[in-house]
Amino acid sequence: MSAIAIGPRVRKSPFYDATIRHGALSFTIYNHTFMPTSYESDPEVEYSNVVNGVQIWDVGCERQVQITGPDTMTLAQLLTPRNLAKCAVGQCKYALNTDQDGGVINDPVLVRLADQQVWFSLADSDMLLWAKGVAASKKLDVTIDEPDVSPLQVQGPKSRDLMRDIFGDWINDLKFYWMRETDLDGIPLVVARSGYSKELCYEIYLRDGQYGDKLWDRFFDAGQPHNVSPGAPNQILRVEGGLLSYGTDMRLENNPYEINMGWSVDLGQSADFIGKEALAQISHDGVTQRLLGAVLEGEKLTTFNEHHWPAFVDGAPAGYLTTCVYSPRLQQNLAFVMTKNEYANTGQNIEIRSPEGSINATLCELPFIRKRQE
Amino acid sequence: MSAIAIGPRVRKSPFYDATIRHGALSFTIYNHTFMPTSYESDPEVEYSNVVNGVQIWDVGCERQVQITGPDTMTLAQLLTPRNLAKCAVGQCKYALNTDQDGGVINDPVLVRLADQQVWFSLADSDMLLWAKGVAASKKLDVTIDEPDVSPLQVQGPKSRDLMRDIFGDWINDLKFYWMRETDLDGIPLVVARSGYSKELCYEIYLRDGQYGDKLWDRFFDAGQPHNVSPGAPNQILRVEGGLLSYGTDMRLENNPYEINMGWSVDLGQSADFIGKEALAQISHDGVTQRLLGAVLEGEKLTTFNEHHWPAFVDGAPAGYLTTCVYSPRLQQNLAFVMTKNEYANTGQNIEIRSPEGSINATLCELPFIRKRQE
Repeated sequence: MSAIAIGPRVRKSPFYDATIRHGALSFTIYNHTFMPTSYESDPEVEYSNVVNGVQIWDVGCERQVQITGPDTMTLAQLLTPRNLAKCAVGQCKYALNTDQDGGVINDPVLVRLADQQVWFSLADSDMLLWAKGVAASKKLDVTIDEPDVSPLQVQGPKSRDLMRDIFGDWINDLKFYWMRETDLDGIPLVVARSGYSKELCYEIYLRDGQYGDKLWDRFFDAGQPHNVSPGAPNQILRVEGGLLSYGTDMRLENNPYEINMGWSVDLGQSADFIGKEALAQISHDGVTQRLLGAVLEGEKLTTFNEHHWPAFVDGAPAGYLTTCVYSPRLQQNLAFVMTKNEYANTGQNIEIRSPEGSINATLCELPFIRKRQE
Repeated sequence: MSAIAIGPRVRKSPFYDATIRHGALSFTIYNHTFMPTSYESDPEVEYSNVVNGVQIWDVGCERQVQITGPDTMTLAQLLTPRNLAKCAVGQCKYALNTDQDGGVINDPVLVRLADQQVWFSLADSDMLLWAKGVAASKKLDVTIDEPDVSPLQVQGPKSRDLMRDIFGDWINDLKFYWMRETDLDGIPLVVARSGYSKELCYEIYLRDGQYGDKLWDRFFDAGQPHNVSPGAPNQILRVEGGLLSYGTDMRLENNPYEINMGWSVDLGQSADFIGKEALAQISHDGVTQRLLGAVLEGEKLTTFNEHHWPAFVDGAPAGYLTTCVYSPRLQQNLAFVMTKNEYANTGQNIEIRSPEGSINATLCELPFIRKRQE
């Protein structure tokens, strides 16, 4: 295993020191920020910890693009095909950003804090530069910046119990994809009922980086009765739930329809957004490829794939596998496969060529597990 | 030392497999791509290898933003304060990108391949999204994309000998910051006399990723008589030469004047560029802080700093250290320090607070070593 170079070019999350103390084993770099990716050498142990208890994830690397000023909602709408006309203050929305060609720039969650204040809470790309570039040529009265805001995620079936112990009974009333501004022992926070899994989960946006250690310790102290453990965005959990990863399962060369996100594109809205014309054309013509699930035969997978693996049908190139994991819950090897349109059907047999050899697989629609949030 | 998670979210350079074979010990992630950062546990050994021989660096993570089409030079000029009016086909230029406020978006090298084709060869930020965002609202006839182009750097005093052995005598005529399109055993390349040090050096832009292994091996085979070794962008070398690192020594919140790059801003040109108004204002008002060199007293540094360290004068906050290294050539600890304007003078004493304690330092102008390219 190669080491990660820790140096001043890449930012440390406010929770970095805490994650080191808690035994983070490996890291990646996400939005120019270190992010822990594991605390256990066996991914199944970490998976078991989250599905049976409550886990705290340092996702300080989920940076916010903040827009403020009178034209906030005009710019926000220009930046996403999602219809924001009915997005209320206090609401969150999964809101893809697309470029002129309909390519996906990022797949953030939009958080509407006020009439004239929104955050796009980012996946891994400099959407800040995109938003600034778009605004550079428009006469819009907005300020665009990256504030000192770093999220933690609280994940797992016991997350509500922990959240209620810390914040009180109002947590019971926080609806899915809604948020609330609050503070904890003087630490300014936004608390949202959202997160990167289909388990019960919350995001805690820390609004002052100097309190990273204090906030982390507060959650671990209160979490003791609830079997708290440190964790990281869980690959097994997200694949089971059909949640995509920007960079892994979609990139700038993909459009929303290819990744089954057509539901979030509102071509009929009166407002303009970047990519509207291109996406209307793609919607009319149909896609040439689409992301499906796949169940892989053979031995239980013990590691994740290092890169995309090519896929074939009857020896002809048919696409590529983006992600694969072993699901302890389903006792199956699961994958996402970007598949040429002619093969993109449930039940289609497909050959995956991994570095270790050929694997037979069968395509299916996503997700593998539909779990309610309660 | 923490491990780096190798997974499909981050791209592998075409030279990745070769760098693993050659014993890369540590990696970072740069432009969503893995980049090796060391092959030796002692940085002085790697430094000695490059200053006494020739080293091959995998900088496939230096991605290109390619602009083509009739309005190529109009857009390129809009994207940089550098005056491109006299930039000839075949020429390269260090060409900062700035935003509306004069903040530095990236510090790429512009490569002019043709009348209507340029590359911005990037430091670590998604300048592709910035360029696309700027173009989204303009009626410019351009195509903007990231081509399959991945550079290698050839570094050190014996680099010209190696280059001549491989490409022939025309290498002698390649002038500093000029390039040539060529091929090697059918591998399409751009060869430029540029690179990230003040040693003699070259950049080889591989234009077809499938040949990564073949190109790497070709350089190692030909390099045997010249004491070739694998290496990575060398921190000691760059600090000695006063070369900055985007993310480390400057970020979006810095303007070109603060980082001593005012020479590259042409406010008097007739053409427009983004940030012109803001930079004119800063030029008129003067900066509030500036990056200087510093020589640090005390024990020889044995590691690089993990993050910025705060700086003080007479107990008052005076700025921060961005980078520090031990220079075997100068037998001194060298640093870059972003310093409040009132203290930004040669000879100023300044206290640096490292995690291990206080260090006395003296400021000076950059670079520490001026070495000719011949």
